[in-house]
Order: sequence, then C-alpha cells, then structure tokens
Amino acid sequence: MKKADKFVKNAAGRLVPTIVNGKKVMPFMGVGKYRPNHKGASPRVPTIIDYPMDCNKVVGSLKDSLIQSGLKDGMTISTHHHFRNGDYVANWIFDIAAELGIKDLVWLPSAAFPCHAPIIKHLESGVVHHIEGSLNGPLGDFCSRGNMKGLGYLRSHGGRYRAIADGEIHVDIAVLAASASDMTGNANGVLGKHPFGPMSFSKVDSMIADRTIIVTDTLLDFPCYPWEIMGNEVDFVVVVDEIGDPSKIVSGTTKITKSPDRLLIAEYAAKFVEAAGILRDGMSFQAGAGGVSLAFTDFVNNMMIEKDIKARSMIGGSTKYLVDMMNNGRTDYIFDGQNFGLEAIVSLRDNPRHIPIDVRESYDYHAKSNLVQMMDVIVLGCTEVDVNFNANCVTHSDGRMLHGIGGFQNCMMAKCTMIAAPSFRDRIPVIKDEVTTLVAPGDLVDVIVTERGIAINPLRADLIEATKNSRLPIRDIRDIKDEVDDMCGIPVKPKLSDKAVAVVEWVDGTILDTIYKIEE
Amino acid sequence: MKKADKFVKNAAGRLVPTIVNGKKVMPFMGVGKYRPNHKGASPRVPTIIDYPMDCNKVVGSLKDSLIQSGLKDGMTISTHHHFRNGDYVANWIFDIAAELGIKDLVWLPSAAFPCHAPIIKHLESGVVHHIEGSLNGPLGDFCSRGNMKGLGYLRSHGGRYRAIADGEIHVDIAVLAASASDMTGNANGVLGKHPFGPMSFSKVDSMIADRTIIVTDTLLDFPCYPWEIMGNEVDFVVVVDEIGDPSKIVSGTTKITKSPDRLLIAEYAAKFVEAAGILRDGMSFQAGAGGVSLAFTDFVNNMMIEKDIKARSMIGGSTKYLVDMMNNGRTDYIFDGQNFGLEAIVSLRDNPRHIPIDVRESYDYHAKSNLVQMMDVIVLGCTEVDVNFNANCVTHSDGRMLHGIGGFQNCMMAKCTMIAAPSFRDRIPVIKDEVTTLVAPGDLVDVIVTERGIAINPLRADLIEATKNSRLPIRDIRDIKDEVDDMCGIPVKPKLSDKAVAVVEWVDGTILDTIYKIEE
Repeated sequence: MKKADKFVKNAAGRLVPTIVNGKKVMPFMGVGKYRPNHKGASPRVPTIIDYPMDCNKVVGSLKDSLIQSGLKDGMTISTHHHFRNGDYVANWIFDIAAELGIKDLVWLPSAAFPCHAPIIKHLESGVVHHIEGSLNGPLGDFCSRGNMKGLGYLRSHGGRYRAIADGEIHVDIAVLAASASDMTGNANGVLGKHPFGPMSFSKVDSMIADRTIIVTDTLLDFPCYPWEIMGNEVDFVVVVDEIGDPSKIVSGTTKITKSPDRLLIAEYAAKFVEAAGILRDGMSFQAGAGGVSLAFTDFVNNMMIEKDIKARSMIGGSTKYLVDMMNNGRTDYIFDGQNFGLEAIVSLRDNPRHIPIDVRESYDYHAKSNLVQMMDVIVLGCTEVDVNFNANCVTHSDGRMLHGIGGFQNCMMAKCTMIAAPSFRDRIPVIKDEVTTLVAPGDLVDVIVTERGIAINPLRADLIEATKNSRLPIRDIRDIKDEVDDMCGIPVKPKLSDKAVAVVEWVDGTILDTIYKIEE
Repeated sequence: MKKADKFVKNAAGRLVPTIVNGKKVMPFMGVGKYRPNHKGASPRVPTIIDYPMDCNKVVGSLKDSLIQSGLKDGMTISTHHHFRNGDYVANWIFDIAAELGIKDLVWLPSAAFPCHAPIIKHLESGVVHHIEGSLNGPLGDFCSRGNMKGLGYLRSHGGRYRAIADGEIHVDIAVLAASASDMTGNANGVLGKHPFGPMSFSKVDSMIADRTIIVTDTLLDFPCYPWEIMGNEVDFVVVVDEIGDPSKIVSGTTKITKSPDRLLIAEYAAKFVEAAGILRDGMSFQAGAGGVSLAFTDFVNNMMIEKDIKARSMIGGSTKYLVDMMNNGRTDYIFDGQNFGLEAIVSLRDNPRHIPIDVRESYDYHAKSNLVQMMDVIVLGCTEVDVNFNANCVTHSDGRMLHGIGGFQNCMMAKCTMIAAPSFRDRIPVIKDEVTTLVAPGDLVDVIVTERGIAINPLRADLIEATKNSRLPIRDIRDIKDEVDDMCGIPVKPKLSDKAVAVVEWVDGTILDTIYKIEE
C-alpha cells in the first residue's frame, strides 16, 4: 500500500484506506447507515448465435478453454470453494496462466484453503496480483507477512455476492468445478464421481461473468439435473480425470468437540436458547460446522426430543448431525449453502426437503430481505471478542490472518446472534479490550458464551430480561475478562507494522477495518 | 402511429416502423444476423435496511401496496398469465389505478386473455396507454380495430424475458399472483387454495422490477417452499380472498382433438418423427397443449410403448397426458413452463422429476444456449403458413389479431420444428402465398404437416433424405396449396388500412412485422 493513499477513521474508529488496489472505497458508516443509490451489475448480453447450435460446449482442456475465453493480463478469475481443502481446479488455472506468461491476475475465490498454497509462487512471480476472498492458512500467512503485491480484500460470503451483483467486481472468467455436467454446461455438485454438495457460492459468478467455464470429471447425458449452474450461462465445458478430493471437505473442525470446556460452552449456549424462549415449535436456526457449534446443535437436538419440539428450518453448513435431525423429524427443512460429508450430500441429492440455497437468498445485504434474518438463533465461533462485543474471526491475537471470514458477518442479521468461544486459547485471552481486527461490530453481537459465563449485550434488554431468572452464569463481559486476565496475564498488543496488507469489508460494501503486516 | 414515424423494409421484406411508442427499434436483419453489443439490465440496488427487520411485508390491500410502491403516470406494470383465463389480479390493478386517477400506464403481461376484457375501458379512458404482450381475444380485437392509444408490442415468451433482461423494458412494478406465500414474499404456484403451476414467466420480473408485489390467497408460515419467487426480491405481500379461478386455466384447446382430419394430421406428424429417425431412446421433445399437439403426443406415446422407447425429457405446457407418460416410464423428466390442469400441478408439486423451468432457461435467445435447442422435435399449431414456410400464429387471415404469440418463435430453435395445421379452416385456406403477419421466418420452419400431406422445407435436405422412402404423403407445399385453393377458391387478401396497430418482435429484439388496423 502506497503511503500516498489516504487513510481515514471510520465510524467504528478504525483507520481504513480510501483507495484499495486502485479503486475508491467508502469507510464504514455504522450499522445500517449506508444506503446504496446506484444500479447493479449489468452483464454483457450474449447471443446463442455465438455458441454451437448443437449446444456442445466441450473443449479439449482447461488451457484451451482459458485461451478461448481470452485470458489476459489483469483479468479477474473466480472460483468456488465447495471442495474446501480438496480442490484441484484453482491451482491448475494459475499454473496455466503462468505457462502462458499472463500477469497481474486477480483471484476471486469464495475462499482459499491450505491446498492452494501452490498459488504462493504465482503471487511471488506476479502471475497473480492479489486475492479477494477468504484466506485460510498459508495464503493468509503469506499476505500477513506483507508479501502480496496488492491488498487482500476480505468479503463475507454475502458481501462477495453483493459486490459482484452490485457491479463493484467485474468477473472476467469464472472457472467452476462441478461434480457433474452435460455438454451444454448444466451442472451440479451432487452427481458424478466426486460430489461435494451445493454450488451455492458460484451461481452469481456464472450469471455475471463474461465467460463461465465448467470443469467436471463426470460428463452426463443432457439434461444433467439438478442444474444449479444453468447451461445457458456457460461458455465451455472441460472434462478432466478428477476435479478434487471430497474426503478433504471435512476437516478436524467439523466434528463434535470432545474438550470438556468446549462442551460446557455448547451446553451453556443451548441452555441460554432455552431460557430465552427461543427453543420452540417452528423455530429456525443456523449452527456452523465447527466443533462447538456441532455440540450446541447436539444439545439443542436433545432438548427438542425431550420437549417434542420441531424446528421449521435449519441452515447448514450441513452435516450428518443436521441430516439425522431432519430424518428424525426435528425439522421440516435444511437449507444448505455448504455441505460437509457424504451423508449430507446424499440427503441434498435425494431429500426434497434438503434444499440448496445460493448466497443471494441467504446472505445478500443489498436485497429486500435475507433468509438469515428469519433465523431465530445462530451460533458462531471466532478468534477474539472485546468488551464492546466486537468480534474478530480472521486474525489471531498476534495479528496473523489465518482464518476465512465466511458467512460470519452475514449471520449478524439473525434475530439472536451468539458467539461461543473459550475464554482463552493457549493461555492467550480471547476477550480483549479491543479486537485486533474488527469483523463484526458489537452492535450486532447479542450474546457471548464462554466456559466461564455468558455475557449479554446491554443493547439486548429483552434477552437480559428473558433470562434473568435462568440460573445460568450470566455475567458482565468485563468480569469474565478480568478473571481470564488474572489467570493468563493481560495480553500484549500484537507487534504490527503500519503497512496495510488487507482490508475487511462490511456487508454493505464499506471498509470496516485494515489488517496490517506482522512484525517478524 | 403518426405518419411522421419512418417505416423501413426489413430483411424479411416487411415494412416496419423504426420508432415504436416513442422508442427507437431496429428492423429484423435476418435469422442469426443481429449481434448485441451492449450490457444488460442493471436493477436498482436495494438494501435490507429499507425493509422490515422482521421481514413481515404484509400490507393491508393491493391498493396500499400500489400506493406504497409509488404508482404514478406512465409506469410499466407487469403481471404473469399462469392463471390464463381465470386471472383476477390484473383487472384489479387497473381498477385501482383508475380510482387513483393514474394515466398512461403500460401493461406488460406475459399474456392477456378474454377475462381481461374489463381492461378495455381503462384503455379507452387513458388509464392504460398500451399493452406489451400476447393479446388473446377481446383485447386483440380492440387493438386490431385501431382503438389502443399506443402500439401493441408482441414479444414471444423468450423475447419478453430477453427484453427485460437486456434492459429494453424497465418494469416499475411487478404484481405477481401466487397461490401461496409467506410474509416475506417467498412464493409459489403449487401450494395453497388455488394452485396454478409454475411461476416461470414472472421470475425475471421479480428480479428486475423496482417493486415487486405478491398477491396471494394463502399465507403460509415461513418458509413457503418451493420459492419460485424469492422473498429477497419482494417489497410487499397482499392477502386477498381469491386470486383466480384455476378451472379456467384449461380451455377447450387443451383436450385431444376429436376431429378426424386433425387426428390424421397428428398421426402424420408422429409417423414423420418416426420415419426421420427422431423417435429414439433418449430423445427430448416438446408438444404444446393444443388439441392436435396432444393427439401427436398420444400417437408418439403409443409408438414409444410399442418400441419400448424412453425419452429423456419433455417440455410442457404440461398436461395429464405428459404426467401419465412420465408415470409410465416414458420419460425421465418433464420441464414445465406452463401447467394445464390439476394432475399436472400435483405432479409438479410432488414429483422431483417434474421440474419448473423459467423462461431464461428455456427460451432466452440472448443467452449462451437454450433448453429449446436441445429438443429433438417440437410440434406447433398456427393460423397460417405460406409457400416459403413462413408462419403466423397471431392474426387470422382477415387480419384480426386474436391469438397470443406465446413461445411460438422460441420453439423455432429446436432441432426439428414442425407445424401441424389443417390445410383450411371454415373454407379459408391456411397455406398462403404470403402470411398475413410474419411471426416465424420460413428459414426455421422445418416441416408443415396437413391432412393432405407433409411439406418439408427445402433447406432441410437431411429430413428429405431421411424420409424419402417412408411412404408418407410428402409433397411440395405449392402442390398442397394448389389443391386447397382449387377446393376453397384463392383467398382474397384481407382488407387492412395502412395504420399500424401493433408490431411483432423477433426473438433477438428486432422488428419482424407490423400488424395493421382492420377495415370495417
């Protein structure tokens, strides 16, 4: 980031740049303050006369398809992350770009994972200028060390959708892995040799990109149905041996925690939901696929069985736990934006009540409503919170950006957003005076649940009132913090340079915070 | 139409205006000649902060919702026609507009039916300036007599989608009847008291319109699923007693013909399909819901049973005949853009292989491919054809515009498009030297089937070759015409004034023909 670029203090008190990667951006103005006054993306109008009349769009290789798509310097290339750590496709794209001598690409994944570490060499060589998208692990670390040419740009899942649909990002070429496709490009992620679940995150890419390439390892007869991606949005179909390794979709974080402390957190969260009157027939809720969230879901499930309660809908990260609940009559619907594991894939494929949802439906802030607003309660994990209920899920307390931003910000729009986190990790307190990186403004975090107690946001007088006689360990957040600080010592502030390496966008497109280079 | 407006001769030799209702338009350039070089519609960007945080969008009445939507003079109001002749909603809109003193509205239905005759008084009084959409019956007659203030604008189903998606029509307010909705506006046409089928034609309206109003008579708990219309596109939900009369969806034309001549036409068409090698395992086809098309489907079904053939997909106008075929294992899928009758509605609701499709998927010429291109054969009815294989489906030979244009033009993109029609009606020949109104250019009409013989377009040497030993009565179209003219007498040209009353758009947005005021 050049020194000439102006920084301003935004409504959250954070210094943020006004120009990011050469484009003007707006500082965060406060929750619910920025009102768009413009029109959205206007995709190039194609015509069927430019495509094969027999609709056979199969080309010989990914390289051919990229060349025919007009790949050139400076383009923005998008991919989805439904294969998570098992994706093969993104690495191929940039290897081919390197071979072709292309420079300064922008990679717009819906998330990057450790399996994408090979792209570091393309960031170093200038094939890729910068990445806009969740950065997990090595790529986040690379960016944190100040090694990326451009600024990283972290958008929530909904924010990514919004930015594309609002016309702020132009996608030149979308390269979308699909577990099955027909020759026309009707494609999904539930059939074929390597199914991975819904293709939710890439629907918008296919609709807005100038060129859309489907990469599959299973070519089916027309029609490949369901067609989450429609052939009428697709330019080329590429058939390869294997698109990815579905066994790597599920990571260590997608199993119920065995830690006694974390089980206690999950139990507190579930009991809070009950005490607050949220646990009732017809409720809708979302719980992530992390260990604590899964344990929470398990506790809720047991309460539901005990009280004979049936939910109306659950939004997943869908796992076998959610599928079991639906099969046991504990919910009418699962809405699935990301799928973890074969049981959930089979359920998505075969159960008409297990429904793929795209990001538009669930998370787009620039819409007339969101599914997530209909969720009675959502439980999330994070890396840090602070005494003002601000939350961070992307950087560690040492400033390193190691975690994806995912749908974290979008989930703040639920009726009750709870953060479940241990009060310290590796003797480093999780509750701070001020989060290292602001990802979710404290106005929107309703409840923080730790193994030492539950803190309710003072803004939620209704929840405080509803749970005041619950016998749950409801405490002032500063009390919990003091207790932890007494045990662990007051944490030192991370050593960070004043060089920006990435920005965090709020769901409305304004800049919420800056991530700085770590001092080594 | 003012005399000052320039007319030009287009590539089909038809005189067409260059300005329609004040907007510049392009003349037809020939099939596959016009290549768009612009960007598509760019909808206004909304934000959830402008909508109720509890997502309850129910307002007291349609009038309230129209007022809150900012209804004012000159706006374009869209509706869908899935209720066909049983629709109540469109009439209400313009009654309310009249009550509010609003003038010069443009009505953009996906089609108008005789039940909409009450709108004639609003055309006369100036509440409605003109109609853009298929005009069946009284409204078509009204327009033909030169009584509409603006020019009628006939677009195919796919052309309507294209025009909205390409940004040529701006929809100010979409008013969409739904048989079920939740308070957020997630809505469909298969649940509730008065189900009518898919909402295919209105998906684009909901996504592009500034304001979208759902009118329903069945309010369900969230989530109303399936949600063909998504709540995140909806501004207001209005609950009324009854949205329409589903018994009027099915007209006299949606039963298998009993006329011996027409049964013969259907049989010839089916035998032609067999002789041409189209009837084979895995084929896909579309047959309309008219009497001859249904008889054709019945003949094909019997052939399929005899040869133990299974189709891959059928596109409907879906009827109980198609549903029976699927239930008997004669097809893997039904793609349903318009639904005729309760059996088909129940199938759409309950059978995951009976799939609602929107117009984008099936018919949009400005896409990277269409479902309709994958159809091996399509059979259509019409009002007239000519010796150059041009076809007309909107005007009678006396020039009166009495029929909707529907998907007629879009179906021309199938691999084999057949027109099945009697050689004369009421002693008026159907085969002309030149069609009264050009709706489908002869380049794209492959086969014309009459009770007196089958004419193959000389451009389709492959079909001529494939069927040459078939013993079917394959004849030169001029021979059939001469025979009919000998019987009926050479038809007199209709008496038409030189005043334009409507235009016919080709699927690519260019103007294919002009419809003139009839002389009375």
